[in-house]
Amino acid sequence: MKVGILGATGAVGSEMLNSLVEQNIKVDELKLFASGKSAGKLVDFKGEKIAIEEAKEDCFKGLDIVLGASANPVAKRFASNIVDNGAVFIDNSSAFRLYDDVPLIVPEINGEDAKKHKGIIANPNCSTIITCMAVYPIAKLSKITKMITSTYQAVSGAGAEGITELEEEIELLKAGKPLSPKVFPYQIAYNCIPQIGGKYDDDLYTTEEMKMENEGRKIMHLPELMVTCTCVRVPVFRSHCISVSLQTERDLSVCEVREAIKNFRNVQLKDELDDGIYPMPLETSNQNDVFVGRIRKDRVLDNGIALFCCGDQIRKGAAANAVQIINCL
Amino acid sequence: MKVGILGATGAVGSEMLNSLVEQNIKVDELKLFASGKSAGKLVDFKGEKIAIEEAKEDCFKGLDIVLGASANPVAKRFASNIVDNGAVFIDNSSAFRLYDDVPLIVPEINGEDAKKHKGIIANPNCSTIITCMAVYPIAKLSKITKMITSTYQAVSGAGAEGITELEEEIELLKAGKPLSPKVFPYQIAYNCIPQIGGKYDDDLYTTEEMKMENEGRKIMHLPELMVTCTCVRVPVFRSHCISVSLQTERDLSVCEVREAIKNFRNVQLKDELDDGIYPMPLETSNQNDVFVGRIRKDRVLDNGIALFCCGDQIRKGAAANAVQIINCL
Repeated sequence: MKVGILGATGAVGSEMLNSLVEQNIKVDELKLFASGKSAGKLVDFKGEKIAIEEAKEDCFKGLDIVLGASANPVAKRFASNIVDNGAVFIDNSSAFRLYDDVPLIVPEINGEDAKKHKGIIANPNCSTIITCMAVYPIAKLSKITKMITSTYQAVSGAGAEGITELEEEIELLKAGKPLSPKVFPYQIAYNCIPQIGGKYDDDLYTTEEMKMENEGRKIMHLPELMVTCTCVRVPVFRSHCISVSLQTERDLSVCEVREAIKNFRNVQLKDELDDGIYPMPLETSNQNDVFVGRIRKDRVLDNGIALFCCGDQIRKGAAANAVQIINCL
Repeated sequence: MKVGILGATGAVGSEMLNSLVEQNIKVDELKLFASGKSAGKLVDFKGEKIAIEEAKEDCFKGLDIVLGASANPVAKRFASNIVDNGAVFIDNSSAFRLYDDVPLIVPEINGEDAKKHKGIIANPNCSTIITCMAVYPIAKLSKITKMITSTYQAVSGAGAEGITELEEEIELLKAGKPLSPKVFPYQIAYNCIPQIGGKYDDDLYTTEEMKMENEGRKIMHLPELMVTCTCVRVPVFRSHCISVSLQTERDLSVCEVREAIKNFRNVQLKDELDDGIYPMPLETSNQNDVFVGRIRKDRVLDNGIALFCCGDQIRKGAAANAVQIINCL
């Protein structure tokens, strides 16, 4: 299998290399693409040095899979080149996620959908993947009809630059020097910013917030799912948390919800309030499982369940999920 | 007017001194009480040095008002001494908040209730004050029946020690040294902790989470209000944020909600998504107003409104509100 990574130098791109190794994907040849300014840089893969190549229209020849870890404009620019050259494009950008002929995949949930691809498969939004992993075991018990979510999103969601910006701000504040945020609209150190993405439409939700509904419906095959989402950036390095209240058709007990979550693949039940066990970004970082806890009856919604979940945004929220999709083909 | 402050050396107690000055409360005599280990320490008030006295049963004689900024056991120990000595005890602890004969006051909302006191008046929970300030203007348009809230709570909620712990953790992490959290159950630097308070009952909500419902109902005179609350500690120094979805009896437009919030006393509308204007803890810290923004139709609840609000936990969430109550008497 010949694999390419488009956007190989970013936070998600470099984690894709780790995921290829960790998931034992048999890679006969690996090509790494990025913008011209990274061309020539050497990257280590299984002890071998691979030189970054500048992404160009004709660079994808002979590849079987291209993993996309770049922004929408780059994904859009190269998608047809990739597909025309016979590779499957597993793309982490949001450019194609809602296209009817593009499967949007979380392997544990709708891996079968991947087989229907026409060249492009989309990797979902990070918070949406983590939330769907947490709530899909519940949806299998009884259809989820409504979901209200508030996110606590790490700076890694804005890529490697987001991590650097938080680190630098902490240093500058300590030195009493002025800050000049570039990645985030305001200082993120010791702050919360309740805007991720621009305005989606006149309803005043952001693009990031609408992904939870639009992508959640598609992934879980719940076309009528109603979602309210509020996305907030917090000064955490690399795991996203989501506070969820949901309504199901049938009244579920906390006990059966816990059991369903415990038995779902790649999800860990962390739910012992008395012992201080619950999901936290520090504990989910640098591993692939989604942690779910604080499970209780929601006090407002009919047949409601409240929970708190957490997962590594760069891993299961992006790179690891994309690499898993290879095994769905 | 002779005023005492019980717990004068903590984060809230020392802010009460500032609030007395800022709100122009006419103080003829001020007495400051704390534990024995602070006794003798000098504190500045309007250019005068006041010595901290050890809190004892007989120290409250001759006072008109005692502002309580100590924990529940201390409040319980001294409450009857204070009242028996003829002072009104305006207490920030949660010890008496739900007693039928103890008014629980946010002056802008139910200041009139303060007049019914029998010696003790309770200052509400910090997140609850901030949330009630944000949603009460909406409740005046149409009765709020349901509310789902997720909090983003600053370390100052755990007092001055909480602030020190976050500062120290940032330093220790930078130096690569091990951490030993004392105030919070886990490292709070670059983390989120979805537990504040212990287990309330077998429904697995925490004591902090149930304050939003129990105190919210009492403050807003909405005895049937249904509330789901998830309380999360975040690495922010001193303002709490709350993401709110609520349901009202009548369908409200975003426009009339914005107008009602804009016209409510001590609340600021910060709601221009296109211009990046919304409430953030950095901007609400060290001032008294509650900021409200991200106002939009909730996509799940009938007649639903979603919003994000933020306020200084030590000021409006504690000290400033308690001092305001003096003017309700």
